[in-house]
Amino acid sequence: MASKEKSSSGELQLIESIRARAMGQRSAALRLGIGDDCAVVRPPAGHDLLVTTDFSLEGRHFRRDWHSATSAGHRCLARGLSDLAAMGAKPLAAFLSLGLPAGMTRKAAGRQWVDGFMDGLLAPTAETGTPLAGGDTATAPGEAVLADIVLLGSAPRGTELRRRGARAGDGIYVTGALGGAAAELAMLAESSRRFRSAKPDKAPNGTHPHLFPQPRLATGWRLRGAKIASAAIDVSDGLSTDLAHLCRESGVGAVVDSSALPLHSLLVALPADEALRLALHGGEDYELLFTARPSTRVPRRIAGVSVTRIGTVSTGSSIMLRDRDGRETPLQPGGWEHDL
Amino acid sequence: MASKEKSSSGELQLIESIRARAMGQRSAALRLGIGDDCAVVRPPAGHDLLVTTDFSLEGRHFRRDWHSATSAGHRCLARGLSDLAAMGAKPLAAFLSLGLPAGMTRKAAGRQWVDGFMDGLLAPTAETGTPLAGGDTATAPGEAVLADIVLLGSAPRGTELRRRGARAGDGIYVTGALGGAAAELAMLAESSRRFRSAKPDKAPNGTHPHLFPQPRLATGWRLRGAKIASAAIDVSDGLSTDLAHLCRESGVGAVVDSSALPLHSLLVALPADEALRLALHGGEDYELLFTARPSTRVPRRIAGVSVTRIGTVSTGSSIMLRDRDGRETPLQPGGWEHDL
Repeated sequence: MASKEKSSSGELQLIESIRARAMGQRSAALRLGIGDDCAVVRPPAGHDLLVTTDFSLEGRHFRRDWHSATSAGHRCLARGLSDLAAMGAKPLAAFLSLGLPAGMTRKAAGRQWVDGFMDGLLAPTAETGTPLAGGDTATAPGEAVLADIVLLGSAPRGTELRRRGARAGDGIYVTGALGGAAAELAMLAESSRRFRSAKPDKAPNGTHPHLFPQPRLATGWRLRGAKIASAAIDVSDGLSTDLAHLCRESGVGAVVDSSALPLHSLLVALPADEALRLALHGGEDYELLFTARPSTRVPRRIAGVSVTRIGTVSTGSSIMLRDRDGRETPLQPGGWEHDL
Repeated sequence: MASKEKSSSGELQLIESIRARAMGQRSAALRLGIGDDCAVVRPPAGHDLLVTTDFSLEGRHFRRDWHSATSAGHRCLARGLSDLAAMGAKPLAAFLSLGLPAGMTRKAAGRQWVDGFMDGLLAPTAETGTPLAGGDTATAPGEAVLADIVLLGSAPRGTELRRRGARAGDGIYVTGALGGAAAELAMLAESSRRFRSAKPDKAPNGTHPHLFPQPRLATGWRLRGAKIASAAIDVSDGLSTDLAHLCRESGVGAVVDSSALPLHSLLVALPADEALRLALHGGEDYELLFTARPSTRVPRRIAGVSVTRIGTVSTGSSIMLRDRDGRETPLQPGGWEHDL
């Protein structure tokens, strides 16, 4: 967390406050944390290092009037953790670059927001033993809060799960339930039109799939370690888009059974076609989508998370959706846009 | 480089263009680059991993009317490389998060700027064998270009240079020359008031210390490997500020000889007190500031870069500037603000 620009006293206080909070976080892998030109990380012996970076930009990935500060912080970290989960890696360390609009930390409400954001970001780092090891701070050039999160993880050499690896005949599986994040986002948009959202601060049991997604780290670690998955990706852009990524990288096609899709409980009240649309195209569920060989026994629950077979890998490159009557239609990626 | 939001066709083209350019970059350490949920990096056997992240935000760290696109890209990467140099590490891989204002890639001038930025960023990655291994892209919430660069490097276990380690009696040394970056920045500011800057695109021989700084990677690697330095930091915030960082972490004071400071040739035409001020407080020189035991023989050139002794580490915590008559006055950190 080398500061590269002259900082106002507010910024210096912010850096010191983040540094003080992160100092309590230690791990065997982190040899040197915040306070030098670089952090020093020692991956476990025989492990490769996995790296992912994700922007969380106000107005693009969160809104201060829809998301509580803790939700924004939680979601910032969750995006990176889910990328590690998808490759079967364990998190080692996180790095946060945080840009705040000029003057934000001079106002009590601004400082409170930053505190809440750090609460939300640091809670999962503590739960998963992932120390905040560094980053950068700067005054943002506009009025939007800018965050970029880097997650480092590790997995035993050469064992990481990739998008490539699926073969025709493999089963297609998904963890948890689909469409919940999109449904909750739609509810947030609706409620913000009618009144200021309550902006829940906590998610006791994963009942807020958009505000407090739960990355499937333990499940991903087991999918890799027990050699269950032949290919994997996280469902961050929506099932249809992420399945297309996996199929393209693997050089295969797929048939998905619409009636097999595990719908999130938030979709129950919706018309069937709308529920199906959110489950297929709704983004940010942060579930794992994976394939497994026909000979592999796939448990119905892995690390406490339900696993559902939703289809089969096929030859060729077309991705088809099969309805309950057996009719197949092409499953186009995307089709759903979230607009904050 | 997992894309987490629905992208416009312009953004998709941008990602594909960056991906295509980065694909040509390979290294033994990079097992898997852009195109999956994470990159996979394998540090050399017996090495620790070093990590640094740095924002490059338009209006804070560069201006499109002062800096050419290639300069902005070069500087973005140079900041991270210099952090690695300061700890004696070799670069392994770079990750770029890039946020562009809405519509920028739909205009020819915008696409040209992004191409130039990537030219500037990728040239040093090619020179140093540091593949661009991933990152993120997003639409920026405002009108400013947002970049965050992550550099991964490595050094043999437990040998990295730190800010801590200086002892009373150690000599204080600096590489290259000081104040050049601040002087060139002042010239840019002046010329932009008079006419549109020529915005030089190339720096054939390090004659543009602000626009095209040259991180001291080979020198840092040797300072560590040959056990020359007892502590080190890069001069990014200015000598006075970075020396204060090093002294605080080492629990020591210092005496700096003002007449010993290696002034950059761009300072020659300035009044002596102004030249001294820029050499002491001017930021972004990206030279290395290090200490060495009295018994250590420090070469005058290391890896082709001049090395100058500028003072001596002292007991206590005060940092003093000694003039040519032997009078000592406290050397306060900072005192110079660059304001883009």
